[in-house]
Amino acid sequence: MPMPTRRQCANAIRALSMDAIEKARSGHPGAPLGMADMAEALWRHVLKHNPANPRWFDRDRFVLSNGHASMLLYALLHLTGYNLSMEELRNFRQWGARTAGHPERDLDLGIEMTTGPLGQGIASAVGMALAERMLAARYNTDEYHIVDHRTWVFLGDGCLMEGVSHEACSLAGTWGMGKLNVLYDANGISIDGKIDGWFTEDVAMRYRSYGWQVIGPVDGHNFDALDAALAEAVADTRHPGLVICRTHIGYGSPKADSEASHGAPLGEESVSATRTNLGWKEPPFSIPPDIYAAWDARAKGQAAENTWKTTFDRYSEAYPELAQEFTRRMHGDLPEKWAEISKEMVSSAVSVCESQATRVASRKVLEHLVPHLPEMVGGSADLTGSVGTLTSASHPLDVTTYSGNYLFYGVREFGMSAIMNGLALHGGFIPYAGTFLSFVDQARNALRLAALMHVRAVWVLTHDSIGVGEDGPTHQPVEQLGTLRLMPDFHVWRPCDSVETAVAWRCALECVDAPTALSLSRQKTTFCARTPQQVAAIARGGYVLLECEGTPDIILIATGSEVALALEAAEALAQEGYRARVVSMPCSSIFDAQDAAWRESVLPDKVRVRLAIEASSSDWWRKYVGLDGMVLGMERFGSSAPGKVMFEKFGFTVVHVLELARRMLNKQA
Amino acid sequence: MPMPTRRQCANAIRALSMDAIEKARSGHPGAPLGMADMAEALWRHVLKHNPANPRWFDRDRFVLSNGHASMLLYALLHLTGYNLSMEELRNFRQWGARTAGHPERDLDLGIEMTTGPLGQGIASAVGMALAERMLAARYNTDEYHIVDHRTWVFLGDGCLMEGVSHEACSLAGTWGMGKLNVLYDANGISIDGKIDGWFTEDVAMRYRSYGWQVIGPVDGHNFDALDAALAEAVADTRHPGLVICRTHIGYGSPKADSEASHGAPLGEESVSATRTNLGWKEPPFSIPPDIYAAWDARAKGQAAENTWKTTFDRYSEAYPELAQEFTRRMHGDLPEKWAEISKEMVSSAVSVCESQATRVASRKVLEHLVPHLPEMVGGSADLTGSVGTLTSASHPLDVTTYSGNYLFYGVREFGMSAIMNGLALHGGFIPYAGTFLSFVDQARNALRLAALMHVRAVWVLTHDSIGVGEDGPTHQPVEQLGTLRLMPDFHVWRPCDSVETAVAWRCALECVDAPTALSLSRQKTTFCARTPQQVAAIARGGYVLLECEGTPDIILIATGSEVALALEAAEALAQEGYRARVVSMPCSSIFDAQDAAWRESVLPDKVRVRLAIEASSSDWWRKYVGLDGMVLGMERFGSSAPGKVMFEKFGFTVVHVLELARRMLNKQA
Repeated sequence: MPMPTRRQCANAIRALSMDAIEKARSGHPGAPLGMADMAEALWRHVLKHNPANPRWFDRDRFVLSNGHASMLLYALLHLTGYNLSMEELRNFRQWGARTAGHPERDLDLGIEMTTGPLGQGIASAVGMALAERMLAARYNTDEYHIVDHRTWVFLGDGCLMEGVSHEACSLAGTWGMGKLNVLYDANGISIDGKIDGWFTEDVAMRYRSYGWQVIGPVDGHNFDALDAALAEAVADTRHPGLVICRTHIGYGSPKADSEASHGAPLGEESVSATRTNLGWKEPPFSIPPDIYAAWDARAKGQAAENTWKTTFDRYSEAYPELAQEFTRRMHGDLPEKWAEISKEMVSSAVSVCESQATRVASRKVLEHLVPHLPEMVGGSADLTGSVGTLTSASHPLDVTTYSGNYLFYGVREFGMSAIMNGLALHGGFIPYAGTFLSFVDQARNALRLAALMHVRAVWVLTHDSIGVGEDGPTHQPVEQLGTLRLMPDFHVWRPCDSVETAVAWRCALECVDAPTALSLSRQKTTFCARTPQQVAAIARGGYVLLECEGTPDIILIATGSEVALALEAAEALAQEGYRARVVSMPCSSIFDAQDAAWRESVLPDKVRVRLAIEASSSDWWRKYVGLDGMVLGMERFGSSAPGKVMFEKFGFTVVHVLELARRMLNKQA
Repeated sequence: MPMPTRRQCANAIRALSMDAIEKARSGHPGAPLGMADMAEALWRHVLKHNPANPRWFDRDRFVLSNGHASMLLYALLHLTGYNLSMEELRNFRQWGARTAGHPERDLDLGIEMTTGPLGQGIASAVGMALAERMLAARYNTDEYHIVDHRTWVFLGDGCLMEGVSHEACSLAGTWGMGKLNVLYDANGISIDGKIDGWFTEDVAMRYRSYGWQVIGPVDGHNFDALDAALAEAVADTRHPGLVICRTHIGYGSPKADSEASHGAPLGEESVSATRTNLGWKEPPFSIPPDIYAAWDARAKGQAAENTWKTTFDRYSEAYPELAQEFTRRMHGDLPEKWAEISKEMVSSAVSVCESQATRVASRKVLEHLVPHLPEMVGGSADLTGSVGTLTSASHPLDVTTYSGNYLFYGVREFGMSAIMNGLALHGGFIPYAGTFLSFVDQARNALRLAALMHVRAVWVLTHDSIGVGEDGPTHQPVEQLGTLRLMPDFHVWRPCDSVETAVAWRCALECVDAPTALSLSRQKTTFCARTPQQVAAIARGGYVLLECEGTPDIILIATGSEVALALEAAEALAQEGYRARVVSMPCSSIFDAQDAAWRESVLPDKVRVRLAIEASSSDWWRKYVGLDGMVLGMERFGSSAPGKVMFEKFGFTVVHVLELARRMLNKQA
């Protein structure tokens, strides 16, 4: 039995892709058909991976940035020996299947990240490649290279059009990510047709302008050319590499070179014609044993991992502490002394009793945390001083040695956030970085992907209300808090003082399976005294900060900088003879997840005289105050004036709170 | 009295900027000090404008993309003779002043657009430049060039780092926007310091890769060099021009070339030293008459406008219809026959009674509208077929003649949206363009700027729920509807059938001072029969679609594709003896703006058994159902499966609606 040809191996991907898409009556055949040869060149000959252990630390990372080509990836995983059965391929795009329409992060399956929104795959891959270099810098020794792998990306024209590719790739050039290698599926077609009308930039020149190594264009269906290009890419370890592969979308099908092959099944007739064109004689979902054998990467993968394990064992003997820390970090465990560290962090905030901006409180927390957590990698989108992410234990990334734990991302909120995802996805890091809350808009879809992928990362979003002041409405968030809270599987903390800030950080770091945003004030907040029980209650997301005797006549609910206002107003109401309770609600998603008894103890159903106070969209707060309560929030955009003036003009004053409270109380009476 | 030197003229900008920032104790002196010479070169010698009539149609457009340099613009407007008094400069960044922290669109003042979020100024300027070319193509004749102006942009390093600059500038190259000219303030400093650590790309090479003309680097403080560069830029009318100006941030001050001059007042001492360095002897807020005289652009500007007026008068005689249409469009008026056109559009939808996807209904509406409205310019971010924005009356932009009314934006949601803003801001166009609702995340801040600037533009956002089906959670919006609705001054329509779709389009086009998003289904919706009163009520944003006898026992509130479900459930409830009302709520912001009587007539306060049904974030709906109602919404991300399966799995079935309704009704009873 002769070895199957490389083309035959590639055709197995094509056949499986066509079959699965045809059966699902839905999917994108053009890209898998076009990229199958590229995939053969990379996956059969270059990629370092062990299908039997997709979690092997030192595997190469592979990111399919043009995620609509998902069947390419599923076919590769199936053929090379991952735990992805033919049955799963048959269930492509069906309820409960692991073969979703676009790849969804699944480390047990070998899917490194969720892709679909174009451009973010390559952007996060920059973070993965950086993670590798930074871990190598910390853990490798002259004899032992325990961290030594590449990050591979497939992408298409769409990824390159998206702005996030610019942000991240420009940075990758600056950082010299030599072990990041990108194969660009240059097929000249996007959904609307031939790209000549909307994508005419000279991509090679653009990437050279970023400081990349650019190879090609090469014929993406010529294996020799692909091998040579990959070898050239691998050889250059100082610049990220872009291999431009000219391909035919829908290769082999009658719809090749046409957008008709992009996003819909080819149809029975075309599939049949494609089989003929490719010389593929197998029935649907059938792969001959010799092709399976040719693709099987298990033995080679296991051997590679075994070699690594031997090295790692020796390393562990030579450097037990480093090895232990490396393993801990790659498992995502917090340091052994975490309980102690975090306890001290909170109790120090409690005892210091400092009234300060929560962004300042956050910086102080970081001063405490960063020296203890080598996995924390900080940064900012060019607002380091304002957001307080740089600590005395922070060291800027050195792009010659890759030492450092702080990244100057430049003015690139989206790129930063996608890179943070990549750092977290790679393993070994808990990224945190800051910008103004109003600019989270630019990064929003990366935060959404973080939520979808259950990434642990922390966004430090300061200047979190009209308290920003003079910079005006473009810099004053209004709707951003509400919009972030509407995102599933995402936590938004808006602490009211230094103690809540410390607890917020603790919860963010302990939350291994969801991202967190910290919404922090530019301006000073007032320190709140608390009982130990109240301090413990912060972690429940919402709790009674000021209690009254008996059933409250009114409940004031507030967050962040507006909590002090609620407390003052409650005292004034008490003097007027009302029983006023103040609830601090720093994290509503966590409060909502508490048991019913806790929620009822904080917000008793029968007390409907409720006033929510937050300098943010009012509508969102109806979920806690209902139709009979009131919200002192923002109904319109802000304006340019000093922060104190803003709060007065928009009614965030004790006088106004009392007015609203009395209106409700009188109505009630 | 000798003429003041050019440097002295520039120093007037510097002095006013320092003084205003010092008085406000807030602001960004570095950029105005650095760019003052560039501004002198452009504004005193090249820019075509008439300070006495900032609304003159054929003025050059000037966009300060690095909006934090706002004092540069205010100083220019003041010095050249716009209606901006010294008193306003003294009130820089104060409540009620027109001199906001960042420039806010104010056509009476000469501020073309709101800037602050970096990169969007240049991106919208691409739209302005395109508007000029497209209007020229339609209205100019061989003898009469009534549209003939340039678009000028100042920007800094931050704008170039932002991804949106990539998206828009790549397109500008493809489109050959020769009359777009950009002056790049290359001062090598951003907020975090010297940019060497995070911005090392070769900007000249990058812009050449886009097909731009790149000039320089020139010394941004050398007037001869600036003059030559501007002349060279103006001479090339086939490629957009980037003039790289090497400047010193904070020029003249002791903090020059340091980030210390970027975002905080220089301080009394530094201001004084700067005055000495610059040889500026005037007290604060004082400009000598000869400097005023040297800057005064009113006579030249009026002469330029007069010349244009003479041409336009002749043109109006020769081409009365074209002139009339041009004037109408530039005033933003709808066609004279609009009432007729829109009436027919709605009544045709009413009479055809077609059950179809609302994205298809929208396409049909566009088929009706586009031939009548030459100001409509359509497009899509590479999803033309899916979003239905291309009509038989649509013609792709021809980049040699600039004829056409349809733009293939490529996969660039953010760039597209910012360009739409620019088209609208320029005047003469109502842009509409489409992408999937889930991808609006990428464009979000451009929609926010549209709202802040009161731009009339229409985003066609299809595939608006888990009904998307197989493409999975990255493509299925969940929180997007709620997040858009939280944005002030922005309308979101989610029509339930072809009739509501037609009315939504009518309202969107008639809404001259706010942007609109249309949320449209991928899948079929059911046509609803309506009385003429109900058809009229759609424009109120929320109305009773199915009435019951007497006071309702329960109100079902729904939008879009879920309205049919509410109707079916209501009928079933009626058979069970309940009085069930169905409210269709296609546009909540417009419903909220109705008088109290209307709102009470639709949602009577006393009826608290309310169930909102929408395949979107539940929390947002609490504003209508309160604490006692229920929401059948989405509490988590979607999944990959056929759309019908998705609706079943997530409980969007009549059975489930009835279950929830009964639970409330039984509790009540």
